[in-house]
Amino acid sequence: MSPPPPASGPRPTTHNRPPASSRPPPSPGPSEGAADPTLLPLFRAVDKDGTGQLSEKELSAALVNGDWTAFDPQTVRMMIRMFDSDRSGTIGFEEFCGLWSFLASWRALFDRFDADRSGNISPDEFSNALVAFRYRLSPGFVDLLFRTYDKRSEGVMSFDLFVQACISLKRMTDVFKKYDEDRDGYITLSFEDFLVEILKQLK
Amino acid sequence: MSPPPPASGPRPTTHNRPPASSRPPPSPGPSEGAADPTLLPLFRAVDKDGTGQLSEKELSAALVNGDWTAFDPQTVRMMIRMFDSDRSGTIGFEEFCGLWSFLASWRALFDRFDADRSGNISPDEFSNALVAFRYRLSPGFVDLLFRTYDKRSEGVMSFDLFVQACISLKRMTDVFKKYDEDRDGYITLSFEDFLVEILKQLK
Repeated sequence: MSPPPPASGPRPTTHNRPPASSRPPPSPGPSEGAADPTLLPLFRAVDKDGTGQLSEKELSAALVNGDWTAFDPQTVRMMIRMFDSDRSGTIGFEEFCGLWSFLASWRALFDRFDADRSGNISPDEFSNALVAFRYRLSPGFVDLLFRTYDKRSEGVMSFDLFVQACISLKRMTDVFKKYDEDRDGYITLSFEDFLVEILKQLK
Repeated sequence: MSPPPPASGPRPTTHNRPPASSRPPPSPGPSEGAADPTLLPLFRAVDKDGTGQLSEKELSAALVNGDWTAFDPQTVRMMIRMFDSDRSGTIGFEEFCGLWSFLASWRALFDRFDADRSGNISPDEFSNALVAFRYRLSPGFVDLLFRTYDKRSEGVMSFDLFVQACISLKRMTDVFKKYDEDRDGYITLSFEDFLVEILKQLK
């Protein structure tokens, strides 16, 4: 294992090198939860066509923010991809229980970081959340991240976009860690590695 | 400048290293076109509210594929970002002329690669287009790229998605080239470089 490069090297990006402690953050991830029978009435209410499987459309209609606005479609698709363990493209009851418990964990975190109880996450609150998750990111990057996921350009983040931003950051961090085998904060990628990893994040 | 690594190196990804000749591809890019007065009646027809500026909604209503289906919203947003030179968020007449000429170039390319005149690009036709653009990519990657942009899971690509896929690939290639200063087909990225470049592609 080689020592990390000096803090001011020839490459202009060197000063951005994150300390190893910034990875990995302890944000909630999907877990193998047992089916919770108390959720069955809710599941049945969401399963409008009674197939026993929730489509993207059914789930979209059921998932709302604190102010009853619909989830961003990308967040819904992300949830389905994360919890659709049998790769059916839909969410069965057991998968729904996992998804629901996951959203409850995020909801608690969201409330914790929404310090002024506005129902939204401000840029400052977002920055504090990332620190709590033990990311160490430059203010410039945190600002870019916020603006990227503030998709409705409201200057604040609703629950769905906060979850999307945090999960995306976690996924990108996991990819980085996969390549950063020597944990020096730098990765080397071939042309196709680079393209493949970006395409995966676009999905 | 160091010689390129051997074709079979210690890293499993080495065999994917693209030859230098695969970059840059000669695909159409935005050009500073002069305003074309013959396009004024068309512009006025698209500018429904008569503001002299086309919104995303107005442009969406005007841009259609060969079979009159609407453009994918991501393609419309990509066009606006590319041609909105004054960063107003809308497309003025001169910007529209540039956009129109750009789409005409792509339309001609699309027709050329649509060898069976089906009005869509099949996976084989897509692969041939990438070869013509002088990309050298593995079949596995071309397949992933096709599936990523075949957003309606139709097994073929309509004009809008073909343009989106090709422009995205061009943008990702340009980013790679920016970092690959020694042109050895590998790049080294810090954690924030990696995150920033992915976020830029998500926009």
